[in-house]
Amino acid sequence: MKRSEVTEKILDAKRLKGLSWKEIAKKIDPKQSEIFLTAGLLGQMKLTPDQAKKTAKLFGLGKLEEILLTEAPYRGSLPPGPPTDPLIYRFYELVQVYGTTWKELIQEEFGDGIMSAIDFNMTMDRQPDPKGDRVKIVMTGKFLDYKRY
Amino acid sequence: MKRSEVTEKILDAKRLKGLSWKEIAKKIDPKQSEIFLTAGLLGQMKLTPDQAKKTAKLFGLGKLEEILLTEAPYRGSLPPGPPTDPLIYRFYELVQVYGTTWKELIQEEFGDGIMSAIDFNMTMDRQPDPKGDRVKIVMTGKFLDYKRY
Amino acid sequence: MKRSEVTEKILDAKRLKGLSWKEIAKKIDPKQSEIFLTAGLLGQMKLTPDQAKKTAKLFGLGKLEEILLTEAPYRGSLPPGPPTDPLIYRFYELVQVYGTTWKELIQEEFGDGIMSAIDFNMTMDRQPDPKGDRVKIVMTGKFLDYKRY
Amino acid sequence: MKRSEVTEKILDAKRLKGLSWKEIAKKIDPKQSEIFLTAGLLGQMKLTPDQAKKTAKLFGLGKLEEILLTEAPYRGSLPPGPPTDPLIYRFYELVQVYGTTWKELIQEEFGDGIMSAIDFNMTMDRQPDPKGDRVKIVMTGKFLDYKRY
Amino acid sequence: MKRSEVTEKILDAKRLKGLSWKEIAKKIDPKQSEIFLTAGLLGQMKLTPDQAKKTAKLFGLGKLEEILLTEAPYRGSLPPGPPTDPLIYRFYELVQVYGTTWKELIQEEFGDGIMSAIDFNMTMDRQPDPKGDRVKIVMTGKFLDYKRY
Amino acid sequence: MKRSEVTEKILDAKRLKGLSWKEIAKKIDPKQSEIFLTAGLLGQMKLTPDQAKKTAKLFGLGKLEEILLTEAPYRGSLPPGPPTDPLIYRFYELVQVYGTTWKELIQEEFGDGIMSAIDFNMTMDRQPDPKGDRVKIVMTGKFLDYKRY
Amino acid sequence: MKRSEVTEKILDAKRLKGLSWKEIAKKIDPKQSEIFLTAGLLGQMKLTPDQAKKTAKLFGLGKLEEILLTEAPYRGSLPPGPPTDPLIYRFYELVQVYGTTWKELIQEEFGDGIMSAIDFNMTMDRQPDPKGDRVKIVMTGKFLDYKRY
Amino acid sequence: MKRSEVTEKILDAKRLKGLSWKEIAKKIDPKQSEIFLTAGLLGQMKLTPDQAKKTAKLFGLGKLEEILLTEAPYRGSLPPGPPTDPLIYRFYELVQVYGTTWKELIQEEFGDGIMSAIDFNMTMDRQPDPKGDRVKIVMTGKFLDYKRY
Amino acid sequence: MKRSEVTEKILDAKRLKGLSWKEIAKKIDPKQSEIFLTAGLLGQMKLTPDQAKKTAKLFGLGKLEEILLTEAPYRGSLPPGPPTDPLIYRFYELVQVYGTTWKELIQEEFGDGIMSAIDFNMTMDRQPDPKGDRVKIVMTGKFLDYKRY
Amino acid sequence: MKRSEVTEKILDAKRLKGLSWKEIAKKIDPKQSEIFLTAGLLGQMKLTPDQAKKTAKLFGLGKLEEILLTEAPYRGSLPPGPPTDPLIYRFYELVQVYGTTWKELIQEEFGDGIMSAIDFNMTMDRQPDPKGDRVKIVMTGKFLDYKRY
Repeated sequence: MKRSEVTEKILDAKRLKGLSWKEIAKKIDPKQSEIFLTAGLLGQMKLTPDQAKKTAKLFGLGKLEEILLTEAPYRGSLPPGPPTDPLIYRFYELVQVYGTTWKELIQEEFGDGIMSAIDFNMTMDRQPDPKGDRVKIVMTGKFLDYKRY
Repeated sequence: MKRSEVTEKILDAKRLKGLSWKEIAKKIDPKQSEIFLTAGLLGQMKLTPDQAKKTAKLFGLGKLEEILLTEAPYRGSLPPGPPTDPLIYRFYELVQVYGTTWKELIQEEFGDGIMSAIDFNMTMDRQPDPKGDRVKIVMTGKFLDYKRY
Repeated sequence: MKRSEVTEKILDAKRLKGLSWKEIAKKIDPKQSEIFLTAGLLGQMKLTPDQAKKTAKLFGLGKLEEILLTEAPYRGSLPPGPPTDPLIYRFYELVQVYGTTWKELIQEEFGDGIMSAIDFNMTMDRQPDPKGDRVKIVMTGKFLDYKRY
Repeated sequence: MKRSEVTEKILDAKRLKGLSWKEIAKKIDPKQSEIFLTAGLLGQMKLTPDQAKKTAKLFGLGKLEEILLTEAPYRGSLPPGPPTDPLIYRFYELVQVYGTTWKELIQEEFGDGIMSAIDFNMTMDRQPDPKGDRVKIVMTGKFLDYKRY
Repeated sequence: MKRSEVTEKILDAKRLKGLSWKEIAKKIDPKQSEIFLTAGLLGQMKLTPDQAKKTAKLFGLGKLEEILLTEAPYRGSLPPGPPTDPLIYRFYELVQVYGTTWKELIQEEFGDGIMSAIDFNMTMDRQPDPKGDRVKIVMTGKFLDYKRY
Repeated sequence: MKRSEVTEKILDAKRLKGLSWKEIAKKIDPKQSEIFLTAGLLGQMKLTPDQAKKTAKLFGLGKLEEILLTEAPYRGSLPPGPPTDPLIYRFYELVQVYGTTWKELIQEEFGDGIMSAIDFNMTMDRQPDPKGDRVKIVMTGKFLDYKRY
Repeated sequence: MKRSEVTEKILDAKRLKGLSWKEIAKKIDPKQSEIFLTAGLLGQMKLTPDQAKKTAKLFGLGKLEEILLTEAPYRGSLPPGPPTDPLIYRFYELVQVYGTTWKELIQEEFGDGIMSAIDFNMTMDRQPDPKGDRVKIVMTGKFLDYKRY
Repeated sequence: MKRSEVTEKILDAKRLKGLSWKEIAKKIDPKQSEIFLTAGLLGQMKLTPDQAKKTAKLFGLGKLEEILLTEAPYRGSLPPGPPTDPLIYRFYELVQVYGTTWKELIQEEFGDGIMSAIDFNMTMDRQPDPKGDRVKIVMTGKFLDYKRY
Repeated sequence: MKRSEVTEKILDAKRLKGLSWKEIAKKIDPKQSEIFLTAGLLGQMKLTPDQAKKTAKLFGLGKLEEILLTEAPYRGSLPPGPPTDPLIYRFYELVQVYGTTWKELIQEEFGDGIMSAIDFNMTMDRQPDPKGDRVKIVMTGKFLDYKRY
Repeated sequence: MKRSEVTEKILDAKRLKGLSWKEIAKKIDPKQSEIFLTAGLLGQMKLTPDQAKKTAKLFGLGKLEEILLTEAPYRGSLPPGPPTDPLIYRFYELVQVYGTTWKELIQEEFGDGIMSAIDFNMTMDRQPDPKGDRVKIVMTGKFLDYKRY
């Protein structure tokens, strides 16, 4: 069984139950970030055994599917090539347009290294604005120095 | 003349003068964000005529180069294919891992549409942390509804 | 279940009922543009709950399929690579041939920014012509200024 | 000599003279569409000998460059892969999102065939709108029937 | 149902009946070119309702399959990338080797434009030759002038 | 020196002399097909020493360039990926649409094998037609049997 | 039915019967080369009706599968992109490393043309060697002259 | 300096001197295989210091170029993607058609492992044949067992 | 049946039995390296008949699946393109960053040749470290000299 | 100026001086690993100002080149696509063959996370072996836990 099949089952069950990701996150583990849990249910993060058990119960999954949710998945949620979905493409566009700027400014501030995408967290909020509300995303990642040896 | 040749000239002049992007931004336009200006000097944003004039003076550019800085460039700062530089790749990895999560959560909150990469701004800061300082990036983009017609 | 499976079911039912897209659009929602609705039934736009209900009734779809029609789909209707179908390829060819012209003329008229593909609408008509009728496509998209920050 | 070198020379001369495409089009041939002429100067269309002569005079081009402007160029104005420039990408996105819709609706109305990208013309205008002006593009292309033989 | 599934059914039925394309073409419509009909049965051309009915009868297809044969298919008969089959690759090689020659000579003779692949026909014959028989392919396509506007 | 540099020199000299390919072919070798010679001058075929000498004289080429014209070139006249030029693309489209048809019909007539693209020749003519003149291309290639061993 | 499904059935039957390709070749046609026959059973060559009948009997294939074995397959045994299997990759590496050498030396010896991959045969043997046995592959292909016309 | 520049210099000098690869090989080192030396001069193999010195003398190369000839080059003689030159493509086609056959037969004979492309040698000869002479290529490569550990 | 189907069955059985790779390796063959065996169970190495029999018994596989485990598989464990999974990507990144360094240093030390990936072995260990434990990978591969001939 | 130009200058100077990487590393900084320094001189690592000064002196580089050596480079030492050089390809092959094995075993031992390629070091040695010396590579990278948030 593939993790993507578990994801598809979860999405179908979610549709029929009419639950939002917010509600699901609250039921499965109110202490974990909703972004992290959604990413897990979409097959990109590993759930704890307890979260997996609650997910299996909520969506009627079998034992094998429950175990799969506790494994580190082969990550990568998109088909090959630049994403064709406009919402996701805009983030890809940011990498195209700001890639070299991030490199210059982060390395000017911190030295040679990278912002970790592993020791990393993120929040997403609605920022009310009279000209049209805005999506606000805050990411922090640990700066990792290139080790000299 | 290509915009990328202007970028290369600016980078060489910056190296020889020993200036940081922070210092350059202050000299060219202290009211504009340092990210925006750096992106402009790296060939991804259009400078105002006044900013371009100051850039030309600071780095010894000619008239044609100054005009090019005031044009909307053909954007895209990276060679084709997934970026090979580790710092930039980590952002690409975030798109791979979180792409579908962003889609689900933004559209759950805002409805069908996208976060604009045009009506968009960003800050980047150092977040001190005893376990190792963190890079903090805050982005806000206007939510644009898919128009029904 | 995938949205593409819903699309395939709709296409098969449409074939057997012998309905045209014009007729279907009239039955589902005569106030919505026929282009928008067709795009929705082909898996590229989100229908309203009422439109989805009528679609499900018309084509004999189940509850899950009806719900899928009300979700923002992962957009992108074509296989990867340049389209091989000649009708669709001609539009791709227009992007290849006129891409830089659009950029120059739109930005000369409006400044730095883009024509939105989200706040966008389109009509398609037959333009009678003694030398052979013509396809007439009219698109309007809101101009979005690159935000300076 | 390559056509792209002529294009680059024209762009540099245009920058230094501070002319707009509108003004250039008026000087070179006020009876020809500004879109067509701009595309020609960007290396995508063939100019008439008279237009090429005026272009050469206006921008100080040599004889060889003037002749190149009167040749049918190897068309294609973009680097390989999906365009990275946001303005041009949005048109590519329209092909991704509306490709199958165009196919269904054009062929429902006209039968099996294509909209010509050769016997084709286009206009581009500003459509004033209180919520933000819109880019309006009107294209007409002759419908060509797939010949049965 | 996909057109490619209809093609596969036709091929299997043809195998079991031991019919050649020549014989099939005669049975379905002796007035239509054998090339055109074969391309239709392989999923690249649209059959007339009468041809589709005869095809369905000959090969035992159902109603849905018969209707699919009367639709303009999403054309493109090959997997992505250069064709790996040697017979088909040789035609691709001709495009690689003679592409620029065709462009120069057709445009020298006819002016700026293209040979239509839509208003197009083709024959294929055996040309006896003592050194080994030859495949003779004759194509004619309407010349289409690039419209100036 | 690369063969493509010789091609570029020939094209520039041809432009300045105002010669057509027909005229050039007559001057260089009236007994050889105009298609073959044009392909040679565009860097895809090998000229005879005598043809190369005449070409060098006509266009003012040096000794090294003359020798390069007598070498079998690394063939392939197009940039990588599907051709973006519309005239050349239409031939590529024929391969996409008719590839499997050619395979079926040639192998039905001749058995397992291919049409040679090496023992191959071609003519191109204008076919007058009241509805618009047509481009007529006739190709013959020796049929080569797959050797059984 | 696809040829690749026949190949998979043959491989499974071969596994369960515990036969080697050598033994199979002897049973099906001891006069045909073992390489040719293996390539045919792997879906790359066409078998004679008699060979196909014996194959069907040996492996328990049905009528349709037997007929498929007598058709010229759509050749190409590998997934797209450079082969990932090390044994097959080494041959691809030879093309990368020796490609231009083959071109120079074959054309120096034979003139402009190619080594046919159609009128071609091959043997493969073990060459005992005290430092480790060697794989010996002998290929001969008819030299085909580029036809001048 | 890049090895490809040395290759280009050698090719130009060879053209002007009118030498064949056979003659060059004899002058540089009659004891080394002509294939190996040609591959070296084309930038794919490393020459001995003595061979490099003789090459430099023969073709008038400088000291730096002579040293480059004695370095192990970054191998790979072809542009990316399947080769477009017909002579070289035919070898690529053999990999496509016979790849899985080589795998099955070599591993049936020798066990799990590969034919080395490093401990490898090759000869190329003309095989006279009344139906047309043939190119004969003999390769032997050491069989390397996959090490079990 | 494909090897990848056997791999998927093994993974599912392993999940339900709750065994680790270490435990499995011990049961199947305690004398073989755990890396080698895991690679085999993941479809990249060939097991001995005895190992295959024990695997089949442990996981409840059938005869055909057992035989498949004893065949040299078509190697390559990843989807095409750079790996999207972060853990695996980091190894790919090492090739991008250190590729030319490995080439320079290995060839400086050993001469022209390669490190074999066939006569190769590897261990993987946890290296305790107060700043965070480290993954330690040791690889040794036989150096193979490029054969001169 | 681009970093790759500095690399090319260093390689040329190294050739003419006849120095090995070992010798160069000793002169520039005997306390830094030879692998790290070679990677830096090949444009993949950032040197310290002191190392850059010594490099500039040793190889006769200018001020700008010296500064470039102290910048974090845009990393990635290889042309796009799988590497064609056999020595480097073998490492790429290890990723293809062992990628999933590394994932399974590292995550079984350490939990969900990655081996850092930033907090990473490496040694390379010759391992004498009577059957042929071996290349021994030892890598250690800090294990980074996927942060839960």
